[in-house]
Order: sequence, then structure tokens, then C-alpha cells
Amino acid sequence: MEDRAGLVAGLEGVVAAETRLSRVDGEEGELIVAGYPVEELAGRASFEETVYLLWYDVLPDPEQLASFREELACRRALSGATMDLLRAVAAERVPAMDALRMAAGTVRPGAPHDEALALVASLPTIVAAYRRMQEGEEPVEPDPELGHAANYLYMLTGEAPGEEFARALETYLTTVSDHGMNASTFAARVIVSTRSDIVSAVVGAIGALKGPLHGGAPGPALDVVFEIGEASRAEAYLREKLGRGERLMGFGHRIYRVRDPRADVLAAAAKRLYDTDGDRRLYELALEVEQTALRLLAEHKPGRNLQTNVEFYTALLLHGLELPTELFTPTFAIGRVAGWTGHCFEQQGSDRIIRPQSVYLGEENRRWVPVEER
Amino acid sequence: MEDRAGLVAGLEGVVAAETRLSRVDGEEGELIVAGYPVEELAGRASFEETVYLLWYDVLPDPEQLASFREELACRRALSGATMDLLRAVAAERVPAMDALRMAAGTVRPGAPHDEALALVASLPTIVAAYRRMQEGEEPVEPDPELGHAANYLYMLTGEAPGEEFARALETYLTTVSDHGMNASTFAARVIVSTRSDIVSAVVGAIGALKGPLHGGAPGPALDVVFEIGEASRAEAYLREKLGRGERLMGFGHRIYRVRDPRADVLAAAAKRLYDTDGDRRLYELALEVEQTALRLLAEHKPGRNLQTNVEFYTALLLHGLELPTELFTPTFAIGRVAGWTGHCFEQQGSDRIIRPQSVYLGEENRRWVPVEER
Repeated sequence: MEDRAGLVAGLEGVVAAETRLSRVDGEEGELIVAGYPVEELAGRASFEETVYLLWYDVLPDPEQLASFREELACRRALSGATMDLLRAVAAERVPAMDALRMAAGTVRPGAPHDEALALVASLPTIVAAYRRMQEGEEPVEPDPELGHAANYLYMLTGEAPGEEFARALETYLTTVSDHGMNASTFAARVIVSTRSDIVSAVVGAIGALKGPLHGGAPGPALDVVFEIGEASRAEAYLREKLGRGERLMGFGHRIYRVRDPRADVLAAAAKRLYDTDGDRRLYELALEVEQTALRLLAEHKPGRNLQTNVEFYTALLLHGLELPTELFTPTFAIGRVAGWTGHCFEQQGSDRIIRPQSVYLGEENRRWVPVEER
Repeated sequence: MEDRAGLVAGLEGVVAAETRLSRVDGEEGELIVAGYPVEELAGRASFEETVYLLWYDVLPDPEQLASFREELACRRALSGATMDLLRAVAAERVPAMDALRMAAGTVRPGAPHDEALALVASLPTIVAAYRRMQEGEEPVEPDPELGHAANYLYMLTGEAPGEEFARALETYLTTVSDHGMNASTFAARVIVSTRSDIVSAVVGAIGALKGPLHGGAPGPALDVVFEIGEASRAEAYLREKLGRGERLMGFGHRIYRVRDPRADVLAAAAKRLYDTDGDRRLYELALEVEQTALRLLAEHKPGRNLQTNVEFYTALLLHGLELPTELFTPTFAIGRVAGWTGHCFEQQGSDRIIRPQSVYLGEENRRWVPVEER
């Protein structure tokens, strides 16, 4: 992808890091997370186990797990200054991802391991507290007796969630915990490569994740389902949309040529969740819309093999968990921070600054002209 | 630099962007800033002119300059929430660069141009307010009648600086305003490449600049001068240090094989400043130490052609401006934000996500083992 000036547009295909955290194989439709196929890990691992695995390359034994849970649980609370900041920006209706970036940035400097623990532990508290402030409700204090995922749902609603809810959320968080060298992970590695700290790196990563070309996509994936409203309208609606040349959110992904393995994991988790709890009618409508969309896409764009993407099932699952759309990307961050922090540790181990080149296309040898002569 | 796995360590030599902002030629010892050799621009341009030049690729006419100054001056004040946050972290003795990152992160979301103006305008206010809080003094409100650089010094001391002081600081800020594709600028471009916002990008850049492999270096460059204390001790002290195999801070730079052009500009600015004001004895001592160090380095490491680097003159100049060492890197950020924001505009223009690859070195096909069996 080098053009004549040597530019590698988007750094596509350039290998910027070695990692043992995850492998994405878009041709084969495979995602390996720290040695485990994602479908082997997600649905079984608690989020604490996933974080431990990404950091230490091994699943914790019972004693290690208990102590790691405790280390995270005791770091969930936010400082008074952070709460005040959140209150101030909630009053100004600052979007949740900006508020998350601001508040995560206030995690106090410390040793790398402490910073990483504090970030993983406090992201759910920030998101939940901010949501409640925006809704005019008092934040709910974290409950150290609850696991990481269950406590996040508890802080959002004030009620301890059922087991299926917590499990569905853990499945989601593990599924998105790492995904090769995406833009936010790369931003984190660039920042920490200067021997800066992990808070700085994760704040940069949150900033990158916020962009619509990266994590900003899961929100609208179900909009088409809501707009269609009932199954009988699906075909006419989708035909019209495709006829206008509009893109169908929820289908297709840049990396995976075959089915995104995360989509299967999340589809199974969504089925399980809606089987025991949740809006069964919405679930069935979503599946109807999906089948119709896939049939029409195959007809409309033959040979493209467009599949339901991870955003569609993410939206279905998170909607089933009663999370509002505005919290989809912040909840993505709550999962991905496991990978960001793991990549920071790896990058610190390699201790080499990431500093590419640029090509200069500007003028040369301009001469100064005083302002009054311009 | 590709190894067998395809990794390009540190992305060295990879061209990640095209830019018209600056060109660094390490072989020739040249730095072009938006078409102007740095020695042509720095010392003449006010900081407002430099920012305008980097954003619009032209120096402003008198009317444009007046309006641009006004646009910046009216955005200098910090919100109450930001001031409260700074007070809270000052009480905990958080380092200035962390405080700067935190407070810059609270700049409210807006249109790209507004975010960029707010960042450029408010960084000096943050640094000065935080310094005074740490010293137990009340922050000084910005004075909209003063130029950007003069106002920064005013907010630090409570007294409007003399013309030579303001001019020396402007020379410094312009000299460091942009420098090709360094790690902080690259972090900003990666972040904004996801269509995220400029505040997120600049916060990431501040985080990267904080690292000792990037902007964290100017502090110790004069330490050797202070330790030597008087010229007669220079040779013995430096011989001993070199004999122990220690590195001499203040000499040598990764990029420039010949003399760093910024060093000349800052050396001239320092001379001018110390000629009219400042600690003349320190200046002469520094020059003595420099000459001795260069002589001994040539003797000790023949053929390496180690030159006085930009950090040495930066430290000399900023020390002459009575800035404490802790503010050297924050003051670097106050200058470099001109380039960061300019690069963000460029990156937004290209609208392509920066997403390289990683190579997976971990395990494959691990099988789940329940925690009680581990």
C-alpha cells in the first residue's frame, strides 16, 4: 500500500507490535484470546478471570482469583474530586464517552500495576455514576461483595442483577476484551512507548475508541429493528433502504471475510438471555429482520458475502441487559480496558519508543514578512 | 528494520502521514516549520502567528492576527470544575504533567476549531494555576490585554513580564511548535483518525509527551551545570562522569547527525535574554561547561560528533525565564499544542483510520479448565 511518497496509508498491513494477547484471523474467522478460542473462553470466564489471563497469560487458581477479585473490588470507588467533575459535566450534558475519558484521566498516578487495577476497577463506577447523574438520580456505591460485571449492573439500577444478566454481561466483556492491534490499543501502546504511564495510555485509548470509525458503531445497529417495529414490514423497509443505496448498519466488517467469531458468541449469549429474561418479542423481531436483511443483501450485493456483524449482536445483547444505547461504547471500554492494560504491560516490556516518519509536502524557504507588510 | 515475524520495531522508517506542518532533516540539520526555516521564524513570530501559520499555512495579516489573538484570549479562563479538580490534585502533590493532562481533558466537547482554540488558549492557564496552587498561592486570572506568551508568565508570577522575557518565551514556543512525526503528534493522529475529537487527541498527546523518552528530558540537562557550580571544577567533574561511563545529559540527539537547528535558535535567544536580564554568572558557567563537555566528548568518543542538544539550551533559556524545572515539559506542551492541533486538522482531512497489524506470539487452542480444577 505504499504510494510514491512512501506513505503507508492508515499503516495498513504494517506490523507494529508482537503480542501474546490476541490473534485475529479475518480469513478464517478466528479470534484467539490469550491462547483460548473466544468461543471457548467467553461464557465461561468471569471478567476478573479474563483480566488476569490477559495480564499473566494463565487463568488464576482459586486463591489467586479470590485475591485478584479483592484487589479490584477495593479500587472501585471514585474520589470526591472525580465525582464533583462528573456532576459538573453531567449538568452540561457532556456525552458519556467524554465524561468517561475525563474521569478515567483523574485516576491518580502510581505504579503500573496499581494504575491498571484502578482503571479496570473504576471504569464501571464512572459510567454508572455518570448515567445516574444524567438521569437525576443519586449514584449507587459499589458493592464489594458483587463480581465486577454484576456490580456494574447493580450500580446502574440499584438492584443486584440476576445470574443470567451478570453472565450475559461477562460474556460480552470477555468477548470484546482484546482484538489485535485496533486503533485504541495502538494509541495506548504509542503513548506508553515513551515510558509514559498506563493512565495516560488508557485515557488516549478511550479517546480513540470514542471515534465512530472504531467503537462508536454499536449504537445504531439495532435502530433498523426498532424502526421496522414488526416483522411483516421488514422486507419492504429493507428493500427500500437498499434501493436508496443506504448502508445497513449491523452487517459487514472490515476485517472478517467470513463470519466474525464474536458474533456467534454474542448471538448465543443473547439467545440464552432472552430465553430466560428480556423482551422476547424484540428478540424474535431482530432475528426476523436479520434473516430478511441477509437474504436481501445476498440478492442485492451478490458475491459480497455480507454477514451479520458483531455490532448487531452487541446491540441485541446490551439492549437485553437494559443498557441504554448511549452506554454501549462506554461498556465496550469497560471490557476493552483489559486488553489496553495488558498491551501496556507488553509495550513496557519491549521499552522502545514508537515513532514513525512523516513526509513533508509543504513549502520550502519562505521568508519572513513583518505583519504590517502582509 | 523488519525482523522475521515482519515486526517493524518502533515503526522506524515507516511513513505514517503526509504533512505540510514541518520537515525534519537530521542529515542536514534542518527544520522547516510550515515553509519557514525555524531560524527564520522563531524570534520573529508571536506565538499567535505561529499557531495561525500552522493551522492555515499562511501568516495572518494585521486584521486576521488581531481577531485570532482575541479568539484565543477569550478562551483562557478555566471552568470552576476544572479549577476544583486542580486544587484537589495539587493537595495530593500530583506531578504537573499529570495535572495538565487531567485538566486539558476537561475542555468541553465542541466543533474541531473551537476545541483547538480552547486547548491552545487554556494550556498556559492550567499550568500557571496549578503551579501557584502547589506553591500555596492564589491563581492569577488571565489578562486578555497581554499576548499569549506574556500572559503565561504573568499568570505564573502575578507581574507582567518585560519585553525580552515575553520574546524569549515566544522564541521557545515557536521553536518547539512542531517537529515532524514525533510520538505525541503520532498519538494525536491515531486518536483523531477514528473520527474522534481534538480534545481526546491532545490529551493523548500530552500523555505521550510526559514519557521520559519523549518530552520528559529537558529537566536534567542543566543539572550537571548546577552540580559543577563553578567553571574551574568543570573538567575534573566531567572527566570523572565520563570515566564512570555515564551519559552526559544535554548532548546528543537521536535524529540530528549534525547540529540540531533548534539548538542554535535557542542558544541565540538565551544569549539575548541573559545579556539584558537574568543570572549572567550562570549563563557564563553553562557556556564553560558546554565547551569543556564538547572537548571531552570529542576526546572520549571520537567520531561520534556529539553536539549540544536542544534540551541544554531549552533548560538554559527556560531557567533564564525563571521557570522551575517541573514546568519545562508542561511548557513544551504549551508550544507543541500548536503542532498537535494542526496535525489533527490534517488527519481529519485525510479521514482514514490508522490501524496497523500485530503478530501473535501466544499459545493456540488452550482448553478451558474450571477454576476448582486449576
